[in-house]
Amino acid sequence: MKYLNKINSPEDLRKIDIKNLPVLAEEIREFLVENVSKTGGHLASNLGVTELTIAIHYCLNTPYDKLVWDVGHQAYVHKILTGRKERFDSLRQLDGLCGFPRPDESKYDVFGAGHSSTSVSVAIGIAAARDLAHASYNVAAVIGDGSFTGGMVYEALNNAGKMKTKLLIVLNDNGMSIAKNVGSMSTYLTRLRTAKKYNDAKYEVKTAFSKVPVVGETANSVLSASKKSLKKAMIPGEFFEGLGIMYVGPVDGNNVKELIRTINKVKNFNKPVLLHVVTKKGKGYPPAEKHPEKFHGVGKFDVETGELLKKKDFETYGDVFSKALIRLGAVKKEICAITAAMPDSTGISNFSRFYPERTFDVGIAEEHAVTFAAGLAANGYIPVFAVYSTFLQRSYDQLLHDVCLQNLHCIFAIDRAGIVGEDGETHQGIFDTSFLSQMPNMTVMAPCNKRELIDMLNFAVKELDGPCAIRYPKGAVEDVLGGSTEEISLGKAQKVYSGEKIAIVSYGTMMQTVLDVYRELISAGMNPAVYNARFAAPIDDSFVDELRDFKYIFTVEDNIKTGGYGQSLTEKLFEKDIFGKRIYNLAFPKKFIEAGTRPQLFERYGLDSVSVVNFIKEKVK
Amino acid sequence: MKYLNKINSPEDLRKIDIKNLPVLAEEIREFLVENVSKTGGHLASNLGVTELTIAIHYCLNTPYDKLVWDVGHQAYVHKILTGRKERFDSLRQLDGLCGFPRPDESKYDVFGAGHSSTSVSVAIGIAAARDLAHASYNVAAVIGDGSFTGGMVYEALNNAGKMKTKLLIVLNDNGMSIAKNVGSMSTYLTRLRTAKKYNDAKYEVKTAFSKVPVVGETANSVLSASKKSLKKAMIPGEFFEGLGIMYVGPVDGNNVKELIRTINKVKNFNKPVLLHVVTKKGKGYPPAEKHPEKFHGVGKFDVETGELLKKKDFETYGDVFSKALIRLGAVKKEICAITAAMPDSTGISNFSRFYPERTFDVGIAEEHAVTFAAGLAANGYIPVFAVYSTFLQRSYDQLLHDVCLQNLHCIFAIDRAGIVGEDGETHQGIFDTSFLSQMPNMTVMAPCNKRELIDMLNFAVKELDGPCAIRYPKGAVEDVLGGSTEEISLGKAQKVYSGEKIAIVSYGTMMQTVLDVYRELISAGMNPAVYNARFAAPIDDSFVDELRDFKYIFTVEDNIKTGGYGQSLTEKLFEKDIFGKRIYNLAFPKKFIEAGTRPQLFERYGLDSVSVVNFIKEKVK
Repeated sequence: MKYLNKINSPEDLRKIDIKNLPVLAEEIREFLVENVSKTGGHLASNLGVTELTIAIHYCLNTPYDKLVWDVGHQAYVHKILTGRKERFDSLRQLDGLCGFPRPDESKYDVFGAGHSSTSVSVAIGIAAARDLAHASYNVAAVIGDGSFTGGMVYEALNNAGKMKTKLLIVLNDNGMSIAKNVGSMSTYLTRLRTAKKYNDAKYEVKTAFSKVPVVGETANSVLSASKKSLKKAMIPGEFFEGLGIMYVGPVDGNNVKELIRTINKVKNFNKPVLLHVVTKKGKGYPPAEKHPEKFHGVGKFDVETGELLKKKDFETYGDVFSKALIRLGAVKKEICAITAAMPDSTGISNFSRFYPERTFDVGIAEEHAVTFAAGLAANGYIPVFAVYSTFLQRSYDQLLHDVCLQNLHCIFAIDRAGIVGEDGETHQGIFDTSFLSQMPNMTVMAPCNKRELIDMLNFAVKELDGPCAIRYPKGAVEDVLGGSTEEISLGKAQKVYSGEKIAIVSYGTMMQTVLDVYRELISAGMNPAVYNARFAAPIDDSFVDELRDFKYIFTVEDNIKTGGYGQSLTEKLFEKDIFGKRIYNLAFPKKFIEAGTRPQLFERYGLDSVSVVNFIKEKVK
Repeated sequence: MKYLNKINSPEDLRKIDIKNLPVLAEEIREFLVENVSKTGGHLASNLGVTELTIAIHYCLNTPYDKLVWDVGHQAYVHKILTGRKERFDSLRQLDGLCGFPRPDESKYDVFGAGHSSTSVSVAIGIAAARDLAHASYNVAAVIGDGSFTGGMVYEALNNAGKMKTKLLIVLNDNGMSIAKNVGSMSTYLTRLRTAKKYNDAKYEVKTAFSKVPVVGETANSVLSASKKSLKKAMIPGEFFEGLGIMYVGPVDGNNVKELIRTINKVKNFNKPVLLHVVTKKGKGYPPAEKHPEKFHGVGKFDVETGELLKKKDFETYGDVFSKALIRLGAVKKEICAITAAMPDSTGISNFSRFYPERTFDVGIAEEHAVTFAAGLAANGYIPVFAVYSTFLQRSYDQLLHDVCLQNLHCIFAIDRAGIVGEDGETHQGIFDTSFLSQMPNMTVMAPCNKRELIDMLNFAVKELDGPCAIRYPKGAVEDVLGGSTEEISLGKAQKVYSGEKIAIVSYGTMMQTVLDVYRELISAGMNPAVYNARFAAPIDDSFVDELRDFKYIFTVEDNIKTGGYGQSLTEKLFEKDIFGKRIYNLAFPKKFIEAGTRPQLFERYGLDSVSVVNFIKEKVK
């Protein structure tokens, strides 16, 4: 690591001769593969942006110049170059280096990220702040072509085009979201890529014209009429130019010298520039080049073979959902499956193999996904949108205004509900019970085992006629209460154990914890009742009436406390004038929960069985 | 009303000779002006789309063909033509005709609306459903150029372009949102409008080519290379063509014959078509043509003069906010004001007159607005985003992921919080306390009078350093507790009256109701304490401790109960092991609340002072 060893900040980087940067890129790749093979993480995208990251820090005067990463899973090289390589073995671990940019981690992380399509808005905000302060630093956003399917980017571009101020948008085009990118924007970018020969010419035209001082006008307007025709014939970046944004590219994003030459040219244009950079996801590590989707987010693996060290030998909730949906799809021809650019990780790709015409990948576009589903449902189909909890947050208004208000039969299969672990604060799925439970007409369920997930999906498809969410966590299915065959009935809880004085109520996979707690309490001579609520909304009256008999009610859930199930249950008790119970809602506090494994975080926040047992023993007198 | 009188459905419309349609259009305009002058409502946009609505129903076989309205405030003509003209005098009134499309009101209202930018997603969903069912009906979405600043439209276009199926997107371009449209898309559309001469030629080229059978290909790909150049030189709709959507236009949207000719031509193209229609907002009624913004949403007015019957002779919370922000802007140079296409109705236009460089109108783009604000805040500015409660719902994830997670000092001035009245279900601002209270780091306040709003804004700007929301309702400021000068202190409630046994806690303008309730209860010999909570989040410990002394706690709020203040207060009590209180949370039930005046709806839902008094008397024994 001849060069990498010398780099503790971008200043060190800038001292390296440009001709040695390709070697540095190779060193960084080696470092990345070596480290991520031990920690797991986002590999393929970081291998793709190695040269791009080097070139940006080489050309821009970071941190004086501001660099914003979209999503931020591709900021590893950035972290390595900005003084964090020594901590890289703690990546995505409890109290370790975050897998995404975080301002509290480094001054080079200008803005936090994790979700898609926010960077252009952020960069415009920073550029506006700069202009108000009469400062002159550069602002650059690096955004993937996948993120370009998110509508927020266009809201931002619509503003950028009018700003007429210095702003560099680097479009990192690898043709992928997590899976292959979809939609007509993707087709359009492909057309730009393949029109390379025109672009070289165009680039020269552009740079020639950029020497003409342009104040308050786009390059377009200074071109004479005849040159306009020339331009029309030569420039395929018309889409962006139509929005008033100067298009430059495409540039080979794995050629560090070409990148540096180009960035140095465009960085001082006094207008918004979109620099189209083509990179190869997984670049330089053959297994990742071959299977970029597998190496998008990857577990520990063998560097030689690219084989995962821990083969997945268990069934996840996502697997169960996927199989159950395929079975249902055979009998209910109205079922359609929707994914927002995550066909594999949500299990929708399996459905698509059987029912391709009933499968829709809309790209990273959760809002559109929900309202598109509503359109299908309004015409007799039963859309099932499989989505991670944290990303469904983006559709709050579409759920409320387009689905719930019209009481449409849309099903939301929410994976990664509750704590997700290593992705940390930005990805924890601990808000969904709260925001979904507020929505009129929305049914919210959570299965505690494989059987229940299948039953709930059947119930949602066959028995319901309105919106319904089923939330389940990352990881292996549990066999808790596996033998239970009690039918799903709207709002009804399942009594697992009778008891007295104390009722413990949970739903979803926290039932496993609650059963452990139950056994401990029985050993300690207590006799609690245990309920599996199944539904966070609605909550059936008869169950609430049963709770009259208890003095202590403990709810346990994998969600934040505020607005969570515990509060909904309390609301129901109060509505029935049932007061005087000692109600304890055990859940995550109203804070952003850091990265860590599920067991680590449950323990830290008092939601492991030992903590819950101790809490109950302390409170019950 | 020679022709209008004969029309009870679009079938009747289609019997009218095309040459008489201009007369019908005039009759409809007369009907609109006459009726809206008595009920109030959205006038200017409906005057603009009169011919367009006639033409669409004339050319399409509604309701077999599906017509989707974006936002839907411009669907009055549609309602008039689809059998609802007799009920038009009940528009926007309690149990009357809804001001927006509603499927439960008519089979011609294919999908409900109210918020912006959803129609293309809905139409794609319907088109997908049609194709799965092997049906052949047409699907059309009518969407304004204002809605085109919303990012969701691009998520939808990105999908539409790939669908290669019959879909008509009618872009109703009047150059306005509610105010003048902003952003580079708007500039681009202006360029298309002024390039009319090219378009006529283009239209002919297009229609010529459309006679070539095209299967699974866009028109582009069937053009020979030489014609491609021709096309490039002639067609300014490249932006949409870049997305794989055929662009046709612009067409004079107030010329019913031209519209019919064009729609009949394009309606059977087997591909997504964007038909660019240019209309004049306020068309045919001189006062509305002159002041389209004033007549966007208007109260009762004098038809002759265009003067409002009820001159606004009172000060609103929005007015107070606007003035206070201007004063603060003079001393705190970091304050920036942001609006999403509603500069006048949010009071931001006043600020802009003093501080134009610190004012940003981002268009109908609430998500971008929030993250743009976050970018400003991350660089030392204090953005104040003034927005209606119902539209802030669209930014749930941006608030959580971009603002709260980084604890950025952004202020959200939330107008139209609580019941908004006549706009009905889609616009009631009754969810904000619930969804904002869930968000870590977010302070949520509500003023009960003018003084408190000013103080809270000062407090938010000067004392806080994280995200903060201030919610206030539509309508006149109240002078409740006007003399109070108690300082705002984070989370602290104000004790208004001491008392015993009963505590009544409220916040915001419901304090007026609570004071009325207090007087009644005192007369009845009860002695309740009254608290003005001020903060929905956080809630200060010392206040919670004070509540130990009461047996009954009543909370009263202008928000849904689920996740509302009452539940947050209960959470705090429970966390302090304060049990056994009889807690009653008076708020709106978890349902969508219909149109009606604020007093009407408070009465209907038991939140007027008489109902609250009766409720308390019944519960306190």
